[in-house]
Amino acid sequence: MRQDHLVAAGQLSRADVERVLDRAAEFDAALESGESLPARYPETVLALCFYEPSTRTKMSFETAMKRLGGDVVDMGSVDASSVKKGESLADTVRVIEGYGDGIVLRHPREGAARMASEFVDVPVVNAGDGAGQHPSQTLLDLYTIREAAGLDDLTIGIVGDLKYGRTVHSLATALTEFDAHMHFVSPDSLRLPRSVRFDLHEAGAQVREHTELDDVLPELDVLYVTRIQRERFPDEDEYQKVAGEFQIDADTLDAASDDLTVMHPLPRVDEIAPEIDDTDYANYFEQAHNGVPVRMALLDLLLSNHE
Amino acid sequence: MRQDHLVAAGQLSRADVERVLDRAAEFDAALESGESLPARYPETVLALCFYEPSTRTKMSFETAMKRLGGDVVDMGSVDASSVKKGESLADTVRVIEGYGDGIVLRHPREGAARMASEFVDVPVVNAGDGAGQHPSQTLLDLYTIREAAGLDDLTIGIVGDLKYGRTVHSLATALTEFDAHMHFVSPDSLRLPRSVRFDLHEAGAQVREHTELDDVLPELDVLYVTRIQRERFPDEDEYQKVAGEFQIDADTLDAASDDLTVMHPLPRVDEIAPEIDDTDYANYFEQAHNGVPVRMALLDLLLSNHE
Amino acid sequence: MRQDHLVAAGQLSRADVERVLDRAAEFDAALESGESLPARYPETVLALCFYEPSTRTKMSFETAMKRLGGDVVDMGSVDASSVKKGESLADTVRVIEGYGDGIVLRHPREGAARMASEFVDVPVVNAGDGAGQHPSQTLLDLYTIREAAGLDDLTIGIVGDLKYGRTVHSLATALTEFDAHMHFVSPDSLRLPRSVRFDLHEAGAQVREHTELDDVLPELDVLYVTRIQRERFPDEDEYQKVAGEFQIDADTLDAASDDLTVMHPLPRVDEIAPEIDDTDYANYFEQAHNGVPVRMALLDLLLSNHE
Repeated sequence: MRQDHLVAAGQLSRADVERVLDRAAEFDAALESGESLPARYPETVLALCFYEPSTRTKMSFETAMKRLGGDVVDMGSVDASSVKKGESLADTVRVIEGYGDGIVLRHPREGAARMASEFVDVPVVNAGDGAGQHPSQTLLDLYTIREAAGLDDLTIGIVGDLKYGRTVHSLATALTEFDAHMHFVSPDSLRLPRSVRFDLHEAGAQVREHTELDDVLPELDVLYVTRIQRERFPDEDEYQKVAGEFQIDADTLDAASDDLTVMHPLPRVDEIAPEIDDTDYANYFEQAHNGVPVRMALLDLLLSNHE
Repeated sequence: MRQDHLVAAGQLSRADVERVLDRAAEFDAALESGESLPARYPETVLALCFYEPSTRTKMSFETAMKRLGGDVVDMGSVDASSVKKGESLADTVRVIEGYGDGIVLRHPREGAARMASEFVDVPVVNAGDGAGQHPSQTLLDLYTIREAAGLDDLTIGIVGDLKYGRTVHSLATALTEFDAHMHFVSPDSLRLPRSVRFDLHEAGAQVREHTELDDVLPELDVLYVTRIQRERFPDEDEYQKVAGEFQIDADTLDAASDDLTVMHPLPRVDEIAPEIDDTDYANYFEQAHNGVPVRMALLDLLLSNHE
Repeated sequence: MRQDHLVAAGQLSRADVERVLDRAAEFDAALESGESLPARYPETVLALCFYEPSTRTKMSFETAMKRLGGDVVDMGSVDASSVKKGESLADTVRVIEGYGDGIVLRHPREGAARMASEFVDVPVVNAGDGAGQHPSQTLLDLYTIREAAGLDDLTIGIVGDLKYGRTVHSLATALTEFDAHMHFVSPDSLRLPRSVRFDLHEAGAQVREHTELDDVLPELDVLYVTRIQRERFPDEDEYQKVAGEFQIDADTLDAASDDLTVMHPLPRVDEIAPEIDDTDYANYFEQAHNGVPVRMALLDLLLSNHE
């Protein structure tokens, strides 16, 4: 990467993505085998600025930095911070760049990470900005797909809440770089937004939309399931109907290929039945664990670039 | 220990306990003298999952891991976590085992730690599960008793809230392995529960119950005082009466042996008068400090076992 | 320093202050150049006890300790702690000295740090005690002034809320040791308290008070701006009037010397217009960043002294 910051998945070329995933594979292998890492940052301190709660993204970045031999300082919750006294984001990050060698930022406002990156000299990693981007999630999804099914000639089904799912929009956009066949499966009310469909179309993506999973399940290499959020529905009955319809259980998967890989960004509620957990299909916990080597690779590339 | 997890004090044989305490003594001596530790874990990251607040247990485990040269990642408060989105404990710990080489779990539900240990491959340490177990507290109590008075031929008085005190139940059970003489002193309303008395009886323990401390104080080697919780009493007057009756002050201890050791799991409110703090009787701050070497020993035995 | 604790700026002689600042300059230079530090504490664990929220003071101490190669354990928020169960500060710090090799304490009650220092054997650093002291802030202010303008023959203007600003009182007191010319600029309602004026007078300080910044701006080497807190005013209009009157923007600084240094303890709200940020006047982010080397120096002197 020639970038100093990671603000959006879209800033990464296919070569950039492959460089991150290759590096992640090296870290992954070293963690597994207990051999020495390809890079270590024993004197590095990473600042974590989470304006919204996020257990696993935060723990995953923190673990990544600590596995690299470094450490973190955490801004803590916004309630306890200077933000409450009316401090602007630009001021806060300019103070915090005095503490960390890099900043991981989650913020409810779209564009916050890009704005922050314009005010500081240390690398900024976007860990989610409202309805905007969450590029490290996209990278770990791509890494998981590559490990499980390969990124070439991929047929992927993405099911669930496609309307509000930031994760899904980023992943779909990134997959256009790899000529994946994409099938989007959702109830009508949670269909992919027009703007995302337009972007995919412009990028020449091979996209089809469905309301029934059965239509497409047998041909999938990867089934990416997302959480359907209760709070999106005005009516509990409506939610129950939709949630039930798209639940994946052993019966559902009877029609799938034996090589199917099931993914989920977690947390799940009822979208995937626990009986799937111990099957060879299940890859969602592995997917979560991949956050560590992928973020190690990301930090490595940004921090080594920055020196 | 042949165990991979530490879920309950009861899973430890007398030999297991002695192995932990011996190891703790080695760490304690090394910390005191500034000499090098008998074991170090510079690449280890321990995950802390506290579903309930607990300052000192958490700080004590965190200090223990850091004194061992390792580091921790903390799930943070449940309010900020995926738990709020409806994630099950089984899912949460399966994600978090991707971050840590071990998991320290506190959870309000009895049996939570055992359940968690069945879902993950890394060692799980129970740091308290509701009305259930808190085995590292029991081990540090045993260590403190052994250092101060020895575990052989021990006469101990346990005073205060014996009904709700998880700490007391665990300690009493563990002491049956060492043939201790146990005296339980409490108001009638806070007597040891029938089930615990039954278990102690079954184990062949030497147990007596009292409502007055004076009856038994002179013959004690150790006096273990517990906090009487205001919220247990429907009536403030009733609380004040009981709290006052069992407060330990200099006058109370006139009748004690010069070698008496006074312990308390802390925090205390009024159970022990501050005038005791500077006497040779007082051992409760030392007891709290012992949490560090004991948890170092515990982590050492679990982590080395797991490799 | 011959002190074991840092409780109040007033306990430091001019020689003590200079020793801290000289040491801070060494750490600053090493951090800048990437060369090895003049001292490292790889086995040290510092306990952070913040009874009130404070993002930047806490992050700054944490960063300082981690840059020194050590680590921290954090008591977390008071809501989650034993304090809620009614534990006294004296008990809490006596437990926590078993975890840390030093304690950094912020507490709402004036005198809390001094009291704590009397109960424990490890060094206590006061990180703010109510209306009392915040000596590490004073030291970083002095360091920033020395780096930017020198402490000899200094003419400084301090503007804004001089009535409630603990920072200002400490800084002014410390500056009497260096024979600074001090100009205090504020609306009448936020004038320096009589007690502070009296102390400065007793110390032989060269002090003048103003209600207009223009009267004194041209002769200043340093302009120290403080936040005017909305909540101090019974009336929003009154606040707006005062806040507007003392806002520093490019026009204001037309009358200033080219060498003027503008400082602010941050967070700011509207006191300094963003257009100043990129000028050579602006030194407030640098000031915040100086918190790290200054606190490294402070911890180094206290911890090395304590061994």
